Amino acid sequence: MPTLRLTIAYDGAGFNGWQIQSNGCGVQALVQAAVRRMTKERNSVIGASRTDAGVHALGQVAHFHTRRVIAPEGWLRGLNSLLPPAIRVRAVAAAVPAFHARRDARWKWYRYRLLQGPWCPPFLHQRVWHLYRTLDLRAMQRAARHLLGEHDFRAFAAANDANRSSRRRIHRVRIRRVPSSGDAGSEIHFDVVGSGFLKQMVRNIVGTLVEVGEGKRSAGQMRQILASRDRRKAGRCAPAGGLCLMEVGFTGTGVTRET
Amino acid sequence: MPTLRLTIAYDGAGFNGWQIQSNGCGVQALVQAAVRRMTKERNSVIGASRTDAGVHALGQVAHFHTRRVIAPEGWLRGLNSLLPPAIRVRAVAAAVPAFHARRDARWKWYRYRLLQGPWCPPFLHQRVWHLYRTLDLRAMQRAARHLLGEHDFRAFAAANDANRSSRRRIHRVRIRRVPSSGDAGSEIHFDVVGSGFLKQMVRNIVGTLVEVGEGKRSAGQMRQILASRDRRKAGRCAPAGGLCLMEVGFTGTGVTRET
Repeated sequence: MPTLRLTIAYDGAGFNGWQIQSNGCGVQALVQAAVRRMTKERNSVIGASRTDAGVHALGQVAHFHTRRVIAPEGWLRGLNSLLPPAIRVRAVAAAVPAFHARRDARWKWYRYRLLQGPWCPPFLHQRVWHLYRTLDLRAMQRAARHLLGEHDFRAFAAANDANRSSRRRIHRVRIRRVPSSGDAGSEIHFDVVGSGFLKQMVRNIVGTLVEVGEGKRSAGQMRQILASRDRRKAGRCAPAGGLCLMEVGFTGTGVTRET
Repeated sequence: MPTLRLTIAYDGAGFNGWQIQSNGCGVQALVQAAVRRMTKERNSVIGASRTDAGVHALGQVAHFHTRRVIAPEGWLRGLNSLLPPAIRVRAVAAAVPAFHARRDARWKWYRYRLLQGPWCPPFLHQRVWHLYRTLDLRAMQRAARHLLGEHDFRAFAAANDANRSSRRRIHRVRIRRVPSSGDAGSEIHFDVVGSGFLKQMVRNIVGTLVEVGEGKRSAGQMRQILASRDRRKAGRCAPAGGLCLMEVGFTGTGVTRET
């Protein structure tokens, strides 16, 4: 059956994560309901990444099968008119029939935003992690280098992570300071690109890096934490609101842009 | 009694405007309650501008009198810890004792944000006015020139505007296109600086300019609308969420920055 690929943005603040939950409102359930209303079929919408409660997305990718023939512009307007404003379909494209958003994902790019300054602008509430104190950027950059490549990331996974293997490959970690709006200080962006991530892995990595930036840990400790495979050795979990799924990369399915 | 000047930012989406309302939650009431909790006095907090329900601010200015002596940093942290995250005190400064935020205001700068594109990013919901169609920027710029200088702006005031005089001076109108995030199109920013504004005046002006941009009115009609002093001659009222009070200018009270 023909397969469509959706690119989806959402403000995660009001949702219980991507995945359909028995105990709350998942983004997936709302997208699927909108698709079904348009198709009058019993489609399943499958997403590339199971973002946690409170985590945002600019580039979540999902797919579904349908026999309905509608122009991309019609899908876009139709789905967005059925969805709440906090969820927006950015693009709708035909994919090869076998395309699978989760299985075919080759890399994912997450950005974690941290605001360092005397006050947090109202518009950035639940979109950044606000800290008053200044962090040592260089120390965090040095610590992050230990994460590059393929490792067992068990030490950075949530206790209830359900993945069989905890081996993942991190392609890139970039930590940089960017100006923020007005006199609200500056932001630090943690951009992490990897083959995939365990539950809360990016947030646990950022929380640990911040402890390095605060001088509570040395940069070299990252290696020991990784080697320990022990969650208790890593730092706190950074708040969900700072995290955003920026883009999902695929090969051989028409998505060619690389970071 | 010593006078303090506050600079305040707020996300207007959840509030019934600045002013204390009998029927809802005004920003002023919350700021005043926070001040009173810190001072243990019966202070009144007076704002420079009565922003409407749903209108945002980055640079609202307010003042109050107090005998309490606290360092500016202490005021900032203290007030922000008592206020909801949607309201932030940006700065606290000592003012001359006679300073009055409303009476001493010499100019106000408002920005109206309009998003033109196929979809509205979740983070811009209630922060921009989203329109699908392309507007004629030049025509709107030509129309706006008729507003410069001192005029009777009755035609652009809400029916229930309570000001005695409807004469105001507009110092500057700047309309420009700015890129928006991702593939969400482009924004049009309407920056308006004036001696003061009648109720809903900026939104009625923007709503009318957009009708010029859509080709429904000619640029020259702005003059006739002004001259008519008749609200029914002007266009629709642009949605509140696109509007933001950027800055209030004072003379002789230590605020020296000009736009």
